[in-house]
Amino acid sequence: MKLQDLSINELRGALARGELSAREIATRTLHDIERLNPRLNAWTAVTAERMLQEAERIDALRRSGQPLPALAGVPWAAKNLFDVAGHTTLAGARLLSKRPAAARDGYAVRQLHHAGALLSGMVNMDAYAYGFTTENSHYGATRNPHDTDRVAGGSSGGSAAAVAAGTVHFALGTDTNGSIRVPSSLCGLFGLKPTFGRLSRSGSHPFAASLDHIGPMARRVADLAAVYDALQGQDPDDGFQAERPVEATAPLLHRGMEGLRCAVLGGFFTTWCDDEARSALQKAARALEAREELQFPEAELARSAAFIITASEGGNLYLPELKRQPELFEPNSRERLLAGAMLPATWYLQAQRFRRLARQKFQALLAQADVLIAPATPCSATRIGEQEMIINGQPLPPRASMGMLTQPISFLGLPVVTAPLRTSGGLPIGLQLIAAPFNEQACLRAARALEQMGITDARPAEITS
Amino acid sequence: MKLQDLSINELRGALARGELSAREIATRTLHDIERLNPRLNAWTAVTAERMLQEAERIDALRRSGQPLPALAGVPWAAKNLFDVAGHTTLAGARLLSKRPAAARDGYAVRQLHHAGALLSGMVNMDAYAYGFTTENSHYGATRNPHDTDRVAGGSSGGSAAAVAAGTVHFALGTDTNGSIRVPSSLCGLFGLKPTFGRLSRSGSHPFAASLDHIGPMARRVADLAAVYDALQGQDPDDGFQAERPVEATAPLLHRGMEGLRCAVLGGFFTTWCDDEARSALQKAARALEAREELQFPEAELARSAAFIITASEGGNLYLPELKRQPELFEPNSRERLLAGAMLPATWYLQAQRFRRLARQKFQALLAQADVLIAPATPCSATRIGEQEMIINGQPLPPRASMGMLTQPISFLGLPVVTAPLRTSGGLPIGLQLIAAPFNEQACLRAARALEQMGITDARPAEITS
Repeated sequence: MKLQDLSINELRGALARGELSAREIATRTLHDIERLNPRLNAWTAVTAERMLQEAERIDALRRSGQPLPALAGVPWAAKNLFDVAGHTTLAGARLLSKRPAAARDGYAVRQLHHAGALLSGMVNMDAYAYGFTTENSHYGATRNPHDTDRVAGGSSGGSAAAVAAGTVHFALGTDTNGSIRVPSSLCGLFGLKPTFGRLSRSGSHPFAASLDHIGPMARRVADLAAVYDALQGQDPDDGFQAERPVEATAPLLHRGMEGLRCAVLGGFFTTWCDDEARSALQKAARALEAREELQFPEAELARSAAFIITASEGGNLYLPELKRQPELFEPNSRERLLAGAMLPATWYLQAQRFRRLARQKFQALLAQADVLIAPATPCSATRIGEQEMIINGQPLPPRASMGMLTQPISFLGLPVVTAPLRTSGGLPIGLQLIAAPFNEQACLRAARALEQMGITDARPAEITS
Repeated sequence: MKLQDLSINELRGALARGELSAREIATRTLHDIERLNPRLNAWTAVTAERMLQEAERIDALRRSGQPLPALAGVPWAAKNLFDVAGHTTLAGARLLSKRPAAARDGYAVRQLHHAGALLSGMVNMDAYAYGFTTENSHYGATRNPHDTDRVAGGSSGGSAAAVAAGTVHFALGTDTNGSIRVPSSLCGLFGLKPTFGRLSRSGSHPFAASLDHIGPMARRVADLAAVYDALQGQDPDDGFQAERPVEATAPLLHRGMEGLRCAVLGGFFTTWCDDEARSALQKAARALEAREELQFPEAELARSAAFIITASEGGNLYLPELKRQPELFEPNSRERLLAGAMLPATWYLQAQRFRRLARQKFQALLAQADVLIAPATPCSATRIGEQEMIINGQPLPPRASMGMLTQPISFLGLPVVTAPLRTSGGLPIGLQLIAAPFNEQACLRAARALEQMGITDARPAEITS
């Protein structure tokens, strides 16, 4: 029996019945990483000792007859921008590699530890989370498990590769402009970017504070919901929001699409993608009975405004180090961070003002449908090193443009679940299921409906090493 | 009997008993404006017809035996950036003088109308609310009723002059960096800048959205509280905050300093003022038993950050018109608005980030005292046209520096009431009474205590024309 064939609930059941020990899960996972990582380049650090200790704690609970927590014995991986006690938080950046080790786990990591999950290690990303391909000039490119000549997507590319390879059940990522949704799409996973502010970001390395989100990626909707539920909570250390609604979503999944209206997002979202993405969209739209196509004419401006905010806030964050030691910066990002810091204040303010207006405009669409569907990426994974992809007749750089369909949505702060389908050639391609603020459960239920109808395909890749 | 000798409550009593009619109040006020305005240059428009109609409504209420609303028959004036139906909202700017008339009253004006107050007209200000002296290059300088060779302070200088002359009982002003507190100090009034976000700004012309506040100015603390109470309320049109606490403060004034601890703000606030301001401070501190002096070392940086935010947001607001018709801009502000729009985004972001830090630091002081006292202006009113005042041995421009002690406090969004004292030469000089967010009642009660002890002096000026 392969571990990857068991859902989180099944794994927990097997543990509870003593058919499996957490130690065995940890050992098998660590062995798997050793075997696959040379091929994938996903893990930048493996926390073997900690993983075995966490497993020992679960096994001790089981021996003493105590109930097992929700994620007991579930192996996982963290994007290397989450604080893990005793390790330096890299954020994919050589610049940060000399910093002292984190004194304690970040909030999300603590929540998962308390829920009984087993941390396998930290995984690769675009430097500073600034990019959509995880072609990291210092730590190397992470490879897509479904075709190791291709990118895993970014910036949470290591997270996606680790889950898509079947080695861990889930991973934590972050999403500023699409960094959970893009790699979920290219690696064939369910990924959740929650409502802006819904999950605490404390103990994670920021990039663009008014756009950063954290969230999970998994191969099953029920697993995704279980992890999301474990991540929810009040966190006094989180500067953004003291009080946030907490709602267990896993118990709601059985409702499926009951009472939910679904529509397709047209215009920009169906123009800037290829036929494979459009065909995946049609398939899901038929299954979810989304007959109407709604327009969000502000999408293109929203994307531009998101670029301006990201560049300004990212530039502001890194400016002191850009002055002090520019030679340590990722060459792909140095100039755009510097340029971002120097943008006129009026551009930044105008982008934030437009954001309020765009949110209001999108409200009108959300009055017509509970869940809106759009492609998550313009196409499936490009090859590593590829500088151009042709979309809508235009040559575009994958590193910056693979997120063109996710950017306008994170700009609005809306919750999104990506659902993985396949192209005719068998590569993964994801769809965004978008809902109103704090309505994560609607996204998850729509994803669950597609999963149950067999429309999605998140089977892990067979990697021949 | 002079109208100005009656408090708002006494005026209402006289109306209720039929000793006075609202029509008589309106007529006498309009006559007073006609007599004094040529000397003061406070009113930019007189709303005689509306004032007589509003008076007629009050007299009709009285005749029908119905109860009179809280501000029945009280004459007042609005800074010319509040929308008044049928009039163009000038915001002190020739640029805006060609705009169509406002279709309806702004929220604050509606609230006051419903409370029975009688609008006398709109009063002068620094163009765009950008300045501390109300030396308006298009509408002329407003003169200080206590010495008509001197400035009234700004940017709500017309509001202050109208009240200090005894012509109206109160006026509405706005305060972005000190525009209520500075003219209240220089004209000898009680002025309230509430907590940021506490009063709706809808239907007022903005300047720097993350710093703008609206608030009242009056000659009596009880009048100030009564007007503030009438201004409070939920306003669905106000973009900033949907829900805000509403608390009637007038009934709390009798508590005085009971249970309130008071301290002096030292450092920056006692360094950058003259001996007259310091002596007023000591007098009030003794009376309020403020024995401790607390330090806010971030004050100077807070002032710089407030300048950056004001210039950026103001620049962003006016940039389209600066491109289209620069010749219509106030020459004193054109270049600084342009420069503000072009500040690097990183300066703006750093200023906003520092703001959160500075708020946290000030929290520690507010744990030690409920009310903090500081001078409102570095000195009393300078002469009209004066380009320099010497403070702490440094020559400073009054137009930009008269608010140097108010800027760090509004930057934090804290509620402040100014209390008017006098210099040895007899000119007004104000103090700031500062409290924690949403604790307006503490500021008002401290002001009331000083008023009752006879420490303050807000008697209207005798103007010899």
